[in-house]
Amino acid sequence: MLQVVIIGSGNVAQHLIRSFSTNAEVQLKQVFARQPEGLLHLLPADKITGSYNEIVDADIYIIAVSDDAISEVSAQLKFDNRLVVHTSGSAALEAISNQNRRGVFYPLQTFSKNKAVDFTAIPICIESEFDEDLSTLKNLGYTLTKNVYDINSAQRRALHIAAVFVNNFTNHLYSIGYDLCKENEIPFDILKPLILETADKINTLTPLEAQTGPAVRNDINTIQRHLDKLNDENQKDIYTLLTKSIQKAHEQKL
Amino acid sequence: MLQVVIIGSGNVAQHLIRSFSTNAEVQLKQVFARQPEGLLHLLPADKITGSYNEIVDADIYIIAVSDDAISEVSAQLKFDNRLVVHTSGSAALEAISNQNRRGVFYPLQTFSKNKAVDFTAIPICIESEFDEDLSTLKNLGYTLTKNVYDINSAQRRALHIAAVFVNNFTNHLYSIGYDLCKENEIPFDILKPLILETADKINTLTPLEAQTGPAVRNDINTIQRHLDKLNDENQKDIYTLLTKSIQKAHEQKL
Repeated sequence: MLQVVIIGSGNVAQHLIRSFSTNAEVQLKQVFARQPEGLLHLLPADKITGSYNEIVDADIYIIAVSDDAISEVSAQLKFDNRLVVHTSGSAALEAISNQNRRGVFYPLQTFSKNKAVDFTAIPICIESEFDEDLSTLKNLGYTLTKNVYDINSAQRRALHIAAVFVNNFTNHLYSIGYDLCKENEIPFDILKPLILETADKINTLTPLEAQTGPAVRNDINTIQRHLDKLNDENQKDIYTLLTKSIQKAHEQKL
Repeated sequence: MLQVVIIGSGNVAQHLIRSFSTNAEVQLKQVFARQPEGLLHLLPADKITGSYNEIVDADIYIIAVSDDAISEVSAQLKFDNRLVVHTSGSAALEAISNQNRRGVFYPLQTFSKNKAVDFTAIPICIESEFDEDLSTLKNLGYTLTKNVYDINSAQRRALHIAAVFVNNFTNHLYSIGYDLCKENEIPFDILKPLILETADKINTLTPLEAQTGPAVRNDINTIQRHLDKLNDENQKDIYTLLTKSIQKAHEQKL
Protein backbone atom coordinates (compact mmCIF):
# COMPACT_ATOMS: atom_id res chain seq x y z
CA MET A 1 0.00 0.00 0.00
CA LEU A 2 1.36 3.39 -0.99
CA GLN A 3 2.00 5.69 1.96
CA VAL A 4 1.32 9.33 1.26
CA VAL A 5 1.86 12.62 3.11
CA ILE A 6 0.12 15.72 1.77
CA ILE A 7 1.59 19.15 2.40
CA GLY A 8 -0.94 21.96 2.03
CA SER A 9 -4.54 22.76 2.86
CA GLY A 10 -5.96 24.56 -0.21
CA ASN A 11 -8.47 23.37 -2.81
CA VAL A 12 -6.30 20.74 -4.48
CA ALA A 13 -4.98 19.48 -1.13
CA GLN A 14 -8.50 19.10 0.25
CA HIS A 15 -9.79 17.26 -2.82
CA LEU A 16 -6.80 14.89 -2.63
CA ILE A 17 -7.34 14.38 1.11
CA ARG A 18 -11.00 13.52 0.52
CA SER A 19 -10.12 11.11 -2.25
CA PHE A 20 -7.16 9.35 -0.55
CA SER A 21 -9.08 9.04 2.73
CA THR A 22 -11.51 6.63 1.09
CA ASN A 23 -8.98 4.95 -1.19
CA ALA A 24 -8.27 1.34 -0.19
CA GLU A 25 -4.94 1.26 -2.04
CA VAL A 26 -3.45 4.34 -0.39
CA GLN A 27 -2.60 5.09 3.21
CA LEU A 28 -2.85 8.82 3.84
CA LYS A 29 -0.42 8.92 6.75
CA GLN A 30 -0.42 12.62 7.52
CA VAL A 31 -1.21 16.11 6.30
CA PHE A 32 0.99 19.13 7.00
CA ALA A 33 -0.83 22.46 7.27
CA ARG A 34 0.30 25.75 8.73
CA GLN A 35 -3.18 26.09 10.21
CA PRO A 36 -4.15 22.52 11.18
CA GLU A 37 -7.58 23.57 12.49
CA GLY A 38 -8.67 24.31 8.89
CA LEU A 39 -8.61 20.57 8.12
CA LEU A 40 -10.39 19.17 11.18
CA HIS A 41 -13.57 18.65 9.13
CA LEU A 42 -11.64 16.20 6.96
CA LEU A 43 -9.20 14.42 9.29
CA PRO A 44 -8.66 13.51 12.96
CA ALA A 45 -6.31 15.93 14.73
CA ASP A 46 -3.55 13.34 15.19
CA LYS A 47 -3.18 13.03 11.42
CA ILE A 48 -2.46 16.74 10.99
CA THR A 49 0.76 18.52 11.89
CA GLY A 50 1.81 22.13 11.70
CA SER A 51 5.51 21.38 12.30
CA TYR A 52 8.06 20.35 9.69
CA ASN A 53 9.92 18.43 12.42
CA GLU A 54 6.98 16.09 12.92
CA ILE A 55 6.47 14.98 9.33
CA VAL A 56 6.46 11.17 9.22
CA ASP A 57 8.01 8.64 6.81
CA ALA A 58 6.12 7.96 3.57
CA ASP A 59 6.62 6.76 -0.01
CA ILE A 60 5.40 10.01 -1.57
CA TYR A 61 5.17 13.59 -0.31
CA ILE A 62 2.68 15.68 -2.26
CA ILE A 63 3.19 19.44 -2.01
CA ALA A 64 -0.17 21.01 -2.91
CA VAL A 65 0.47 24.70 -2.32
CA SER A 66 0.46 27.81 -4.53
CA ASP A 67 3.14 27.86 -7.24
CA ASP A 68 5.11 30.61 -5.53
CA ALA A 69 5.37 28.65 -2.26
CA ILE A 70 6.64 25.34 -3.69
CA SER A 71 10.36 26.22 -3.46
CA GLU A 72 10.20 27.51 0.07
CA VAL A 73 8.04 24.69 1.39
CA SER A 74 10.18 22.00 -0.23
CA ALA A 75 13.37 23.56 1.21
CA GLN A 76 11.90 23.35 4.74
CA LEU A 77 11.58 19.55 4.65
CA LYS A 78 13.89 17.95 7.23
CA PHE A 79 14.73 14.82 5.20
CA ASP A 80 16.45 14.00 1.92
CA ASN A 81 16.44 11.50 -0.96
CA ARG A 82 12.70 10.87 -0.71
CA LEU A 83 10.10 11.29 -3.48
CA VAL A 84 8.61 14.79 -3.27
CA VAL A 85 6.16 16.02 -5.92
CA HIS A 86 4.14 19.15 -6.58
CA THR A 87 0.68 19.37 -8.16
CA SER A 88 1.12 22.46 -10.32
CA GLY A 89 0.43 22.82 -14.02
CA SER A 90 2.86 25.65 -14.52
CA ALA A 91 5.69 25.29 -11.98
CA ALA A 92 8.85 23.52 -13.18
CA LEU A 93 9.89 20.23 -11.63
CA GLU A 94 12.99 22.14 -10.50
CA ALA A 95 10.88 24.39 -8.28
CA ILE A 96 11.25 21.59 -5.73
CA SER A 97 14.42 21.70 -3.64
CA ASN A 98 16.96 19.17 -4.97
CA GLN A 99 17.68 17.67 -1.55
CA ASN A 100 14.92 15.17 -2.45
CA ARG A 101 13.99 13.12 -5.54
CA ARG A 102 11.64 15.38 -7.46
CA GLY A 103 8.44 14.76 -9.39
CA VAL A 104 5.12 16.18 -10.52
CA PHE A 105 1.62 14.85 -9.89
CA TYR A 106 -0.67 17.30 -11.71
CA PRO A 107 -4.41 16.60 -11.78
CA LEU A 108 -5.73 18.53 -14.79
CA GLN A 109 -9.06 19.81 -13.54
CA THR A 110 -10.73 22.93 -12.21
CA PHE A 111 -11.24 22.58 -8.48
CA SER A 112 -13.85 24.61 -6.64
CA LYS A 113 -14.23 24.54 -2.91
CA ASN A 114 -17.94 23.88 -2.98
CA LYS A 115 -18.22 21.34 -5.76
CA ALA A 116 -17.17 17.71 -5.33
CA VAL A 117 -14.95 16.26 -8.04
CA ASP A 118 -14.93 12.77 -9.46
CA PHE A 119 -11.25 11.79 -9.71
CA THR A 120 -12.04 8.85 -12.00
CA ALA A 121 -12.75 11.43 -14.73
CA ILE A 122 -9.61 13.48 -14.11
CA PRO A 123 -6.39 13.05 -16.10
CA ILE A 124 -3.26 13.02 -13.97
CA CYS A 125 0.00 14.18 -15.55
CA ILE A 126 3.11 12.74 -13.96
CA GLU A 127 6.78 13.52 -14.32
CA SER A 128 9.86 12.40 -12.43
CA GLU A 129 13.65 12.46 -12.50
CA PHE A 130 13.94 8.68 -12.00
CA ASP A 131 12.20 5.73 -13.69
CA GLU A 132 11.42 4.03 -10.42
CA ASP A 133 9.73 7.15 -9.05
CA LEU A 134 7.78 7.54 -12.28
CA SER A 135 6.43 4.06 -11.80
CA THR A 136 5.50 4.85 -8.16
CA LEU A 137 3.66 7.99 -9.33
CA LYS A 138 1.94 5.99 -12.06
CA ASN A 139 0.72 3.50 -9.48
CA LEU A 140 -0.54 6.31 -7.27
CA GLY A 141 -2.30 7.92 -10.24
CA TYR A 142 -4.00 4.65 -11.22
CA THR A 143 -5.54 4.38 -7.74
CA LEU A 144 -7.52 7.51 -8.69
CA THR A 145 -8.14 7.34 -12.45
CA LYS A 146 -7.46 5.38 -15.63
CA ASN A 147 -6.14 8.56 -17.26
CA VAL A 148 -2.50 8.82 -16.20
CA TYR A 149 -0.15 10.50 -18.68
CA ASP A 150 3.66 10.91 -18.84
CA ILE A 151 4.01 14.63 -19.50
CA ASN A 152 7.34 16.44 -19.40
CA SER A 153 7.76 19.98 -18.05
CA ALA A 154 7.63 21.68 -21.46
CA GLN A 155 4.48 19.77 -22.39
CA ARG A 156 2.94 20.52 -19.02
CA ARG A 157 3.49 24.25 -19.50
CA ALA A 158 1.78 24.07 -22.91
CA LEU A 159 -1.04 22.03 -21.41
CA HIS A 160 -1.53 24.62 -18.71
CA ILE A 161 -1.88 27.35 -21.35
CA ALA A 162 -4.31 25.17 -23.31
CA ALA A 163 -6.28 24.70 -20.08
CA VAL A 164 -6.47 28.47 -19.65
CA PHE A 165 -8.03 28.73 -23.13
CA VAL A 166 -10.54 25.88 -22.78
CA ASN A 167 -11.42 26.50 -19.14
CA ASN A 168 -10.75 30.07 -17.91
CA PHE A 169 -11.43 31.84 -21.20
CA THR A 170 -14.38 29.62 -22.08
CA ASN A 171 -15.92 30.32 -18.70
CA HIS A 172 -15.49 34.03 -19.37
CA LEU A 173 -17.42 33.65 -22.64
CA TYR A 174 -20.19 32.00 -20.59
CA SER A 175 -20.03 35.07 -18.39
CA ILE A 176 -20.55 37.37 -21.37
CA GLY A 177 -23.50 35.19 -22.43
CA TYR A 178 -24.87 35.55 -18.91
CA ASP A 179 -24.54 39.36 -19.07
CA LEU A 180 -26.25 39.56 -22.47
CA CYS A 181 -29.14 37.46 -21.15
CA LYS A 182 -29.47 39.59 -18.04
CA GLU A 183 -29.46 42.84 -20.03
CA ASN A 184 -32.29 41.51 -22.17
CA GLU A 185 -34.33 39.82 -19.42
CA ILE A 186 -33.73 36.35 -20.80
CA PRO A 187 -33.21 33.46 -18.34
CA PHE A 188 -29.59 32.22 -18.64
CA ASP A 189 -30.95 28.67 -18.38
CA ILE A 190 -31.90 28.89 -22.07
CA LEU A 191 -28.19 28.77 -22.94
CA LYS A 192 -27.22 25.82 -20.75
CA PRO A 193 -28.19 22.98 -23.13
CA LEU A 194 -26.23 24.72 -25.91
CA ILE A 195 -23.20 25.08 -23.65
CA LEU A 196 -23.29 21.39 -22.73
CA GLU A 197 -23.80 20.26 -26.33
CA THR A 198 -20.86 22.43 -27.44
CA ALA A 199 -18.63 20.70 -24.90
CA ASP A 200 -20.00 17.25 -25.76
CA LYS A 201 -19.66 17.66 -29.51
CA ILE A 202 -15.85 17.46 -29.48
CA ASN A 203 -16.12 13.86 -28.33
CA THR A 204 -17.27 12.98 -31.85
CA LEU A 205 -15.81 15.77 -34.01
CA THR A 206 -12.56 17.75 -33.87
CA PRO A 207 -13.15 21.37 -32.80
CA LEU A 208 -12.30 22.49 -36.32
CA GLU A 209 -14.96 20.17 -37.77
CA ALA A 210 -17.47 21.19 -35.10
CA GLN A 211 -17.19 24.91 -35.87
CA THR A 212 -20.48 26.54 -36.89
CA GLY A 213 -21.79 30.12 -36.90
CA PRO A 214 -21.56 33.35 -38.90
CA ALA A 215 -17.74 33.59 -38.76
CA VAL A 216 -17.04 30.25 -40.42
CA ARG A 217 -19.91 30.78 -42.92
CA ASN A 218 -18.43 34.23 -43.63
CA ASP A 219 -21.94 35.64 -43.12
CA ILE A 220 -20.96 39.31 -43.17
CA ASN A 221 -24.51 40.63 -42.70
CA THR A 222 -25.09 38.71 -39.49
CA ILE A 223 -21.63 39.62 -38.14
CA GLN A 224 -22.33 43.32 -38.80
CA ARG A 225 -25.80 43.13 -37.21
CA HIS A 226 -24.27 41.52 -34.12
CA LEU A 227 -21.57 44.18 -33.86
CA ASP A 228 -24.16 46.94 -34.27
CA LYS A 229 -26.26 45.50 -31.47
CA LEU A 230 -23.42 45.05 -28.96
CA ASN A 231 -23.13 48.11 -26.69
CA ASP A 232 -20.05 47.13 -24.74
CA GLU A 233 -16.77 48.03 -26.47
CA ASN A 234 -14.98 45.18 -24.79
CA GLN A 235 -17.58 42.66 -26.04
CA LYS A 236 -17.26 44.17 -29.52
CA ASP A 237 -13.47 43.75 -29.42
CA ILE A 238 -13.76 40.10 -28.37
CA TYR A 239 -16.41 39.44 -31.02
CA THR A 240 -14.22 40.99 -33.73
CA LEU A 241 -10.99 39.25 -32.70
CA LEU A 242 -12.53 35.78 -32.32
CA THR A 243 -14.47 36.12 -35.58
CA LYS A 244 -11.24 36.95 -37.44
CA SER A 245 -9.43 34.13 -35.68
CA ILE A 246 -12.07 31.57 -36.71
CA GLN A 247 -11.89 32.75 -40.30
CA LYS A 248 -8.09 32.58 -40.30
CA ALA A 249 -8.08 29.07 -38.82
CA HIS A 250 -10.45 27.82 -41.50
CA GLU A 251 -8.61 29.48 -44.37
CA GLN A 252 -5.40 27.81 -43.23
CA LYS A 253 -6.68 24.36 -42.53
CA LEU A 254 -9.64 23.45 -44.70
CA MET B 1 -53.25 16.46 -33.60
CA LEU B 2 -51.15 19.33 -34.96
CA GLN B 3 -50.61 19.17 -38.69
CA VAL B 4 -47.24 20.44 -39.84
CA VAL B 5 -45.58 21.18 -43.16
CA ILE B 6 -41.81 21.76 -43.20
CA ILE B 7 -40.26 23.90 -45.92
CA GLY B 8 -36.54 23.28 -46.35
CA SER B 9 -34.06 20.41 -46.40
CA GLY B 10 -31.00 21.66 -44.46
CA ASN B 11 -29.70 20.65 -41.03
CA VAL B 12 -32.50 22.14 -38.94
CA ALA B 13 -35.18 20.89 -41.36
CA GLN B 14 -33.79 17.36 -41.25
CA HIS B 15 -33.57 17.28 -37.46
CA LEU B 16 -37.19 18.52 -37.24
CA ILE B 17 -38.31 15.94 -39.83
CA ARG B 18 -36.66 13.13 -37.85
CA SER B 19 -38.22 14.31 -34.64
CA PHE B 20 -41.78 14.98 -35.93
CA SER B 21 -41.82 11.68 -37.87
CA THR B 22 -41.76 9.75 -34.61
CA ASN B 23 -43.88 12.22 -32.63
CA ALA B 24 -47.31 10.83 -31.74
CA GLU B 25 -48.79 14.29 -31.19
CA VAL B 26 -47.78 15.75 -34.55
CA GLN B 27 -48.72 14.80 -38.07
CA LEU B 28 -45.92 15.74 -40.44
CA LYS B 29 -48.09 16.11 -43.54
CA GLN B 30 -45.48 17.15 -46.08
CA VAL B 31 -42.02 18.54 -46.69
CA PHE B 32 -41.21 21.02 -49.45
CA ALA B 33 -37.69 20.80 -50.85
CA ARG B 34 -36.27 22.18 -54.07
CA GLN B 35 -34.37 18.91 -54.41
CA PRO B 36 -36.80 16.27 -53.08
CA GLU B 37 -34.35 13.39 -53.66
CA GLY B 38 -32.16 14.74 -50.84
CA LEU B 39 -34.82 13.74 -48.30
CA LEU B 40 -35.69 10.23 -49.53
CA HIS B 41 -33.65 8.69 -46.69
CA LEU B 42 -36.05 10.33 -44.23
CA LEU B 43 -39.48 10.27 -45.89
CA PRO B 44 -41.52 8.41 -48.54
CA ALA B 45 -41.54 10.20 -51.90
CA ASP B 46 -45.26 11.03 -51.73
CA LYS B 47 -44.66 13.16 -48.63
CA ILE B 48 -42.13 15.37 -50.41
CA THR B 49 -42.91 18.04 -52.98
CA GLY B 50 -40.75 20.36 -55.01
CA SER B 51 -43.65 22.54 -56.17
CA TYR B 52 -45.18 25.45 -54.26
CA ASN B 53 -48.51 24.70 -56.00
CA GLU B 54 -48.71 21.28 -54.35
CA ILE B 55 -48.24 22.35 -50.74
CA VAL B 56 -51.09 20.90 -48.67
CA ASP B 57 -53.24 22.35 -45.87
CA ALA B 58 -51.74 22.35 -42.37
CA ASP B 59 -51.94 24.12 -39.00
CA ILE B 60 -48.33 25.28 -39.07
CA TYR B 61 -45.83 25.84 -41.87
CA ILE B 62 -42.22 25.80 -40.68
CA ILE B 63 -39.73 27.53 -42.97
CA ALA B 64 -36.32 26.07 -42.09
CA VAL B 65 -34.05 27.68 -44.67
CA SER B 66 -31.06 30.04 -44.51
CA ASP B 67 -31.83 33.51 -43.14
CA ASP B 68 -31.38 35.18 -46.51
CA ALA B 69 -33.94 32.91 -48.18
CA ILE B 70 -36.80 33.34 -45.68
CA SER B 71 -38.37 36.36 -47.41
CA GLU B 72 -38.28 34.91 -50.87
CA VAL B 73 -39.54 31.46 -49.85
CA SER B 74 -42.39 32.89 -47.75
CA ALA B 75 -43.47 35.16 -50.63
CA GLN B 76 -43.77 32.13 -52.94
CA LEU B 77 -46.44 30.45 -50.82
CA LYS B 78 -49.74 30.22 -52.72
CA PHE B 79 -52.03 30.70 -49.71
CA ASP B 80 -52.74 33.41 -47.15
CA ASN B 81 -53.83 33.91 -43.53
CA ARG B 82 -52.18 30.70 -42.31
CA LEU B 83 -49.57 30.34 -39.56
CA VAL B 84 -46.10 30.48 -41.12
CA VAL B 85 -42.98 30.49 -38.92
CA HIS B 86 -39.23 30.52 -39.42
CA THR B 87 -36.59 28.81 -37.26
CA SER B 88 -33.90 31.48 -37.27
CA GLY B 89 -32.18 33.04 -34.27
CA SER B 90 -31.31 36.24 -36.04
CA ALA B 91 -33.96 36.92 -38.71
CA ALA B 92 -36.82 39.24 -37.72
CA LEU B 93 -40.38 37.95 -37.58
CA GLU B 94 -41.04 40.45 -40.37
CA ALA B 95 -38.72 38.55 -42.70
CA ILE B 96 -41.78 36.41 -43.42
CA SER B 97 -44.15 37.77 -46.09
CA ASN B 98 -47.19 39.39 -44.43
CA GLN B 99 -49.71 37.56 -46.61
CA ASN B 100 -49.73 34.96 -43.78
CA ARG B 101 -49.87 35.08 -39.97
CA ARG B 102 -46.24 35.19 -38.92
CA GLY B 103 -44.32 33.55 -36.13
CA VAL B 104 -40.96 32.18 -35.00
CA PHE B 105 -40.10 28.66 -33.81
CA TYR B 106 -36.39 28.85 -32.94
CA PRO B 107 -34.72 25.77 -31.44
CA LEU B 108 -31.63 27.09 -29.65
CA GLN B 109 -29.07 24.42 -30.34
CA THR B 110 -26.08 23.67 -32.57
CA PHE B 111 -27.11 21.20 -35.25
CA SER B 112 -24.56 19.06 -37.02
CA LYS B 113 -25.43 16.79 -39.88
CA ASN B 114 -23.74 13.77 -38.40
CA LYS B 115 -24.74 14.03 -34.77
CA ALA B 116 -28.22 13.18 -33.54
CA VAL B 117 -29.85 15.72 -31.24
CA ASP B 118 -32.15 15.11 -28.30
CA PHE B 119 -34.95 17.65 -28.65
CA THR B 120 -36.08 17.09 -25.06
CA ALA B 121 -32.94 18.97 -23.99
CA ILE B 122 -33.38 21.83 -26.46
CA PRO B 123 -35.05 25.14 -25.54
CA ILE B 124 -37.49 26.39 -28.15
CA CYS B 125 -38.07 30.13 -28.43
CA ILE B 126 -41.44 31.09 -29.85
CA GLU B 127 -42.89 34.38 -31.03
CA SER B 128 -46.07 35.28 -32.85
CA GLU B 129 -48.24 38.22 -33.92
CA PHE B 130 -51.41 36.69 -32.45
CA ASP B 131 -52.16 35.12 -29.07
CA GLU B 132 -53.91 32.13 -30.59
CA ASP B 133 -50.95 31.37 -32.82
CA LEU B 134 -48.60 31.74 -29.86
CA SER B 135 -50.59 29.09 -28.05
CA THR B 136 -50.46 26.80 -31.12
CA LEU B 137 -46.67 27.24 -31.28
CA LYS B 138 -46.41 26.59 -27.55
CA ASN B 139 -48.32 23.33 -27.99
CA LEU B 140 -46.07 22.32 -30.85
CA GLY B 141 -42.97 23.19 -28.78
CA TYR B 142 -44.19 21.12 -25.83
CA THR B 143 -44.47 18.02 -28.05
CA LEU B 144 -40.66 18.25 -28.33
CA THR B 145 -39.39 19.68 -25.03
CA LYS B 146 -40.37 21.08 -21.66
CA ASN B 147 -38.28 24.18 -22.37
CA VAL B 148 -40.49 26.51 -24.40
CA TYR B 149 -39.90 30.23 -23.95
CA ASP B 150 -41.77 33.36 -25.14
CA ILE B 151 -38.96 35.42 -26.63
CA ASN B 152 -39.56 38.59 -28.62
CA SER B 153 -37.49 39.58 -31.66
CA ALA B 154 -35.16 41.92 -29.77
CA GLN B 155 -34.52 39.27 -27.13
CA ARG B 156 -34.00 36.64 -29.79
CA ARG B 157 -31.35 38.77 -31.49
CA ALA B 158 -29.53 39.20 -28.16
CA LEU B 159 -29.85 35.47 -27.51
CA HIS B 160 -28.37 34.70 -30.88
CA ILE B 161 -25.34 36.87 -30.09
CA ALA B 162 -25.02 35.21 -26.67
CA ALA B 163 -25.14 31.84 -28.47
CA VAL B 164 -22.28 32.93 -30.73
CA PHE B 165 -20.19 33.68 -27.62
CA VAL B 166 -20.98 30.48 -25.70
CA ASN B 167 -21.03 28.15 -28.71
CA ASN B 168 -19.08 29.40 -31.75
CA PHE B 169 -16.39 31.30 -29.83
CA THR B 170 -16.09 28.66 -27.12
CA ASN B 171 -15.63 26.00 -29.76
CA HIS B 172 -12.87 28.11 -31.28
CA LEU B 173 -11.10 28.22 -27.91
CA TYR B 174 -11.30 24.41 -27.89
CA SER B 175 -9.70 24.56 -31.33
CA ILE B 176 -6.80 26.62 -29.98
CA GLY B 177 -6.44 24.09 -27.14
CA TYR B 178 -6.36 21.35 -29.77
CA ASP B 179 -3.63 23.17 -31.74
CA LEU B 180 -1.50 23.74 -28.61
CA CYS B 181 -1.77 20.04 -27.75
CA LYS B 182 -0.86 18.98 -31.28
CA GLU B 183 2.17 21.30 -31.38
CA ASN B 184 3.43 19.76 -28.16
CA GLU B 185 2.56 16.12 -28.91
CA ILE B 186 -0.03 15.93 -26.16
CA PRO B 187 -3.23 13.92 -26.75
CA PHE B 188 -6.20 16.34 -26.90
CA ASP B 189 -8.17 13.77 -24.86
CA ILE B 190 -6.39 15.08 -21.73
CA LEU B 191 -8.41 18.31 -22.03
CA LYS B 192 -11.84 16.75 -22.54
CA PRO B 193 -12.74 16.16 -18.86
CA LEU B 194 -11.77 19.77 -18.09
CA ILE B 195 -13.93 21.02 -20.97
CA LEU B 196 -16.93 19.03 -19.74
CA GLU B 197 -16.46 20.09 -16.12
CA THR B 198 -16.21 23.75 -17.19
CA ALA B 199 -19.57 23.44 -18.97
CA ASP B 200 -21.12 21.52 -16.08
CA LYS B 201 -19.94 23.90 -13.37
CA ILE B 202 -22.33 26.69 -14.39
CA ASN B 203 -25.24 24.48 -13.35
CA THR B 204 -24.23 25.11 -9.74
CA LEU B 205 -22.34 28.43 -9.88
CA THR B 206 -22.79 31.59 -11.97
CA PRO B 207 -20.00 31.98 -14.54
CA LEU B 208 -18.65 34.92 -12.54
CA GLU B 209 -18.43 32.77 -9.41
CA ALA B 210 -16.95 29.86 -11.36
CA GLN B 211 -14.07 31.93 -12.78
CA THR B 212 -10.63 30.59 -11.88
CA GLY B 213 -7.13 30.98 -13.35
CA PRO B 214 -4.25 33.44 -13.52
CA ALA B 215 -6.33 36.37 -14.84
CA VAL B 216 -8.81 36.47 -11.97
CA ARG B 217 -6.01 35.81 -9.42
CA ASN B 218 -4.06 38.65 -11.07
CA ASP B 219 -1.09 36.26 -11.21
CA ILE B 220 1.13 38.46 -13.37
CA ASN B 221 4.08 36.05 -13.40
CA THR B 222 2.05 33.18 -14.83
CA ILE B 223 0.34 35.44 -17.37
CA GLN B 224 3.73 36.69 -18.57
CA ARG B 225 5.17 33.16 -18.76
CA HIS B 226 2.17 32.07 -20.85
CA LEU B 227 2.53 35.02 -23.22
CA ASP B 228 6.27 34.36 -23.57
CA LYS B 229 5.62 30.73 -24.49
CA LEU B 230 2.88 31.40 -27.09
CA ASN B 231 4.39 31.62 -30.59
CA ASP B 232 1.28 32.55 -32.53
CA GLU B 233 0.53 36.30 -32.54
CA ASN B 234 -3.18 35.65 -32.90
CA GLN B 235 -3.20 33.37 -29.84
CA LYS B 236 -1.25 36.02 -27.91
CA ASP B 237 -3.83 38.68 -28.86
CA ILE B 238 -6.72 36.49 -27.72
CA TYR B 239 -4.90 35.61 -24.49
CA THR B 240 -4.24 39.28 -23.75
CA LEU B 241 -7.74 40.54 -24.58
CA LEU B 242 -9.58 37.81 -22.64
CA THR B 243 -7.26 38.18 -19.65
CA LYS B 244 -8.00 41.92 -19.51
CA SER B 245 -11.70 41.30 -19.96
CA ILE B 246 -11.78 38.81 -17.05
CA GLN B 247 -9.96 41.30 -14.83
CA LYS B 248 -12.33 44.10 -15.82
CA ALA B 249 -15.43 41.98 -15.18
CA HIS B 250 -14.20 41.10 -11.71
CA GLU B 251 -13.20 44.66 -10.81
CA GLN B 252 -16.70 45.83 -11.75
CA LYS B 253 -18.76 43.14 -10.16
CA LEU B 254 -17.12 41.69 -7.09
